[in-house]
Amino acid sequence: MKSHLLDLADLSRDEVVHLVQLARRLQDHPEPHALAGKILGLVFFNPSLRTLASTQAGMAKLGGSSFVITPGQGTWQLESRLGVTMNGACAEHIREGLPVLASFCDILGIRSFAAGIDLTADVADSDYKAMASVIPSPLVNLESAIAHPMQGLADWKTLDDLNVPQGSRFVLSWVNHPRALPLAVPATAVHMAALRGHEVVVLRPDGYALPAAVMEKARYAAQLSGGSVTETSDRNMALAGASIVYAKEWGSPEHYGDSATETALRAGLSDWQVREDWFTSARSDCRFMHCLPVRRNVAVADEILDGSRSVVLQEANNRLWTQMAVLHHLLKP
Amino acid sequence: MKSHLLDLADLSRDEVVHLVQLARRLQDHPEPHALAGKILGLVFFNPSLRTLASTQAGMAKLGGSSFVITPGQGTWQLESRLGVTMNGACAEHIREGLPVLASFCDILGIRSFAAGIDLTADVADSDYKAMASVIPSPLVNLESAIAHPMQGLADWKTLDDLNVPQGSRFVLSWVNHPRALPLAVPATAVHMAALRGHEVVVLRPDGYALPAAVMEKARYAAQLSGGSVTETSDRNMALAGASIVYAKEWGSPEHYGDSATETALRAGLSDWQVREDWFTSARSDCRFMHCLPVRRNVAVADEILDGSRSVVLQEANNRLWTQMAVLHHLLKP
Amino acid sequence: MKSHLLDLADLSRDEVVHLVQLARRLQDHPEPHALAGKILGLVFFNPSLRTLASTQAGMAKLGGSSFVITPGQGTWQLESRLGVTMNGACAEHIREGLPVLASFCDILGIRSFAAGIDLTADVADSDYKAMASVIPSPLVNLESAIAHPMQGLADWKTLDDLNVPQGSRFVLSWVNHPRALPLAVPATAVHMAALRGHEVVVLRPDGYALPAAVMEKARYAAQLSGGSVTETSDRNMALAGASIVYAKEWGSPEHYGDSATETALRAGLSDWQVREDWFTSARSDCRFMHCLPVRRNVAVADEILDGSRSVVLQEANNRLWTQMAVLHHLLKP
Repeated sequence: MKSHLLDLADLSRDEVVHLVQLARRLQDHPEPHALAGKILGLVFFNPSLRTLASTQAGMAKLGGSSFVITPGQGTWQLESRLGVTMNGACAEHIREGLPVLASFCDILGIRSFAAGIDLTADVADSDYKAMASVIPSPLVNLESAIAHPMQGLADWKTLDDLNVPQGSRFVLSWVNHPRALPLAVPATAVHMAALRGHEVVVLRPDGYALPAAVMEKARYAAQLSGGSVTETSDRNMALAGASIVYAKEWGSPEHYGDSATETALRAGLSDWQVREDWFTSARSDCRFMHCLPVRRNVAVADEILDGSRSVVLQEANNRLWTQMAVLHHLLKP
Repeated sequence: MKSHLLDLADLSRDEVVHLVQLARRLQDHPEPHALAGKILGLVFFNPSLRTLASTQAGMAKLGGSSFVITPGQGTWQLESRLGVTMNGACAEHIREGLPVLASFCDILGIRSFAAGIDLTADVADSDYKAMASVIPSPLVNLESAIAHPMQGLADWKTLDDLNVPQGSRFVLSWVNHPRALPLAVPATAVHMAALRGHEVVVLRPDGYALPAAVMEKARYAAQLSGGSVTETSDRNMALAGASIVYAKEWGSPEHYGDSATETALRAGLSDWQVREDWFTSARSDCRFMHCLPVRRNVAVADEILDGSRSVVLQEANNRLWTQMAVLHHLLKP
Repeated sequence: MKSHLLDLADLSRDEVVHLVQLARRLQDHPEPHALAGKILGLVFFNPSLRTLASTQAGMAKLGGSSFVITPGQGTWQLESRLGVTMNGACAEHIREGLPVLASFCDILGIRSFAAGIDLTADVADSDYKAMASVIPSPLVNLESAIAHPMQGLADWKTLDDLNVPQGSRFVLSWVNHPRALPLAVPATAVHMAALRGHEVVVLRPDGYALPAAVMEKARYAAQLSGGSVTETSDRNMALAGASIVYAKEWGSPEHYGDSATETALRAGLSDWQVREDWFTSARSDCRFMHCLPVRRNVAVADEILDGSRSVVLQEANNRLWTQMAVLHHLLKP
């Protein structure tokens, strides 16, 4: 495993399995001194709840320490464009700020969401890779434009915890939201499920097909693992025999950055809210997953989140253990 | 003691005495490894200085770690209403956010001030209890609508430090402030002093009587401890023979949430600022307490805060030791 | 060394040399338990990146802990004026807030930039000294109106790392910036270089001469160390034979607080941007220093920051080690 973990696809299936096993080991057999003296630097260009808390908690549970930097909030806004004359709001460039922060710690974790304007750039994760290129030391992606590997690992462990077998049907379903959200989680979820060998169905309304590059990468992963990846807008077909419904909100790749068109399109999609009646043709033990945060009664009905199908709290808790595994793997001598 | 410490009234007199003794023990005989590996999660829905610093410092002095979450500032705003369609500013519901945070740590501390609209709901601490109900693990109230038990414990220890005897007169006095402040501190202070067995006098202008439920609970505590609780708007009568003047700003319960009426009422109350001439009939060694923050020359004159009566710094410092005692008590195996 | 480190000038040359040597020792031979159980309280009245990260990281590398307070952001705004009636935005006075915070930790670090209105008050560091006067315990200046001793120590160590000899020419050059910045860094840099025994040249356009008190103090330090301090607006003369160009932006002392006049003056100074052609008459191994953050292509051209002269990253990294030395020196029994 390289010292930069930018994408779940950077890891082989064996590496993922190893990290999930390590996560379970750390959960069952604490190692409170494993990372004694090690320091995690956290940079959040965007809001966070789970990641902010679980990375600090996880580092502390391994005996290490953390600091948190929130550009624009207690610290300077950071410029990322090359060659620009910096006479605007940004007082510092990432070419200084990030290597300096990296030099104060043993590993950096950075969250930087999609700009949401240029689909090609966001799918290529150009901005994040530009940041990564100036960081010579270990780096963990805490959600970039197109990848959220920490979520993918937590989801994989959750499926293991639930004994959801390889080959079972995993439905990634688009759900409604007041605005266009980034593609990092759905892109990672489809890849994760494909790599785990599921029969993956991406269920989404017209206009919300995931980018071709994302689907191709997932299909390649599926091929290696004996899984498959298909897509449909037919909910009944998608849910038939499903073991997992994984809901996620995302903006239309077709109308990327075109807020007006997408708002109009979404106005007719309020039915894309997960309710109990979605599950008629699913397996009776079909579970519901979501990475959180989730808007109740917009994306998902109360009856699901408060019902017995939901494993969202376990899923969020697994962020702690799988991130500890990543930190342990990258930092333990 | 239950694993949720929501109100000073949840503790028996013996439990309070035990915690204050434990606080003194930790102050005199450090236990730098007592909570090694333990993690405190801190959630601040409202500003904090003493609590924010002293909880982290206290946890560190016991060998543990902390993380801080500030909803709406670096993390999502959290919705607390049940059944609501979440299409507004809040991206996450407390029913997900709080149990997830609880699952990352050994104990949560939450601050969430009064909404200040519905007096009955605030006196019943309905919102805070709704939050507490979704947290299965230890929880410490860092100030809710009606309770600030951490302040109450620090105040009790301060009275012990000063050797203020049971039975002596403790005056809780309303003081002026530019706006209506919550009832948590006065409600806790009157209860604390009653439970410690003082002759408690609540001194306040007309319109600022504490809610009946608060006074009744304090009178019941006084009964068990040999103390008493009365109220008056007559300053000379209240201060006669007083050993302690405990000043606090609070909004009018009579005009709760009615800002216009209260502002008009308060306009005539600028004389409710503690000055040296208040103490003419008090004991010569009468001390001045305030939980801080305090607005100088509005609530309290410089001459008091800079004079020898004031014990506000010692009182604030006791937050550290008593909170350490609470954390130690709830987390030490 | 006193327990308050407010200014590099509070330290003798021997004390600086000792701290820089200690910094090197801690860099080469980690002492991960030196400050076990010790707590650093950090108060940032102004933004920070390097200081915020490196103080926390440094404390953790010595086995200690930190907490961060940002007045006005998650905590109350703090009033500092004496005798004021506090009916405005500030809910707490520094006379309460700072001693309370100090009582929760073993050492405080405070950043509080210049008000930028009254040059005499800022050069005298009146506001910072008022804060320091209410703190009975160790205090480290993390940048005040006129002093940034942590930067000075890091710069000294950087010059040691580079083997820049005593007596060599050190040019502190004013550079352009969209607005008037404080004097703390240039005042500290000129003092540091003088105390290290350099031939110091302050290069600045008309209107930007450093205050007489700053220059006098530096000249006195130079006298003791065999160095010199001169000033000029002639770039070619200044750079001739230079070993170091240390660039910094600062507001005009002549037009202090007069934004309109200064903006007009600065409009003609866009040429004060460090470029490779500045170095024609300098030594071929002349290095470029800057304390960061820096606005690329305003203060300094990309070609310098991305070229081989620049040591800005090493300089920033030295903040970590020299601050660790200060903490170690003040707190290690």
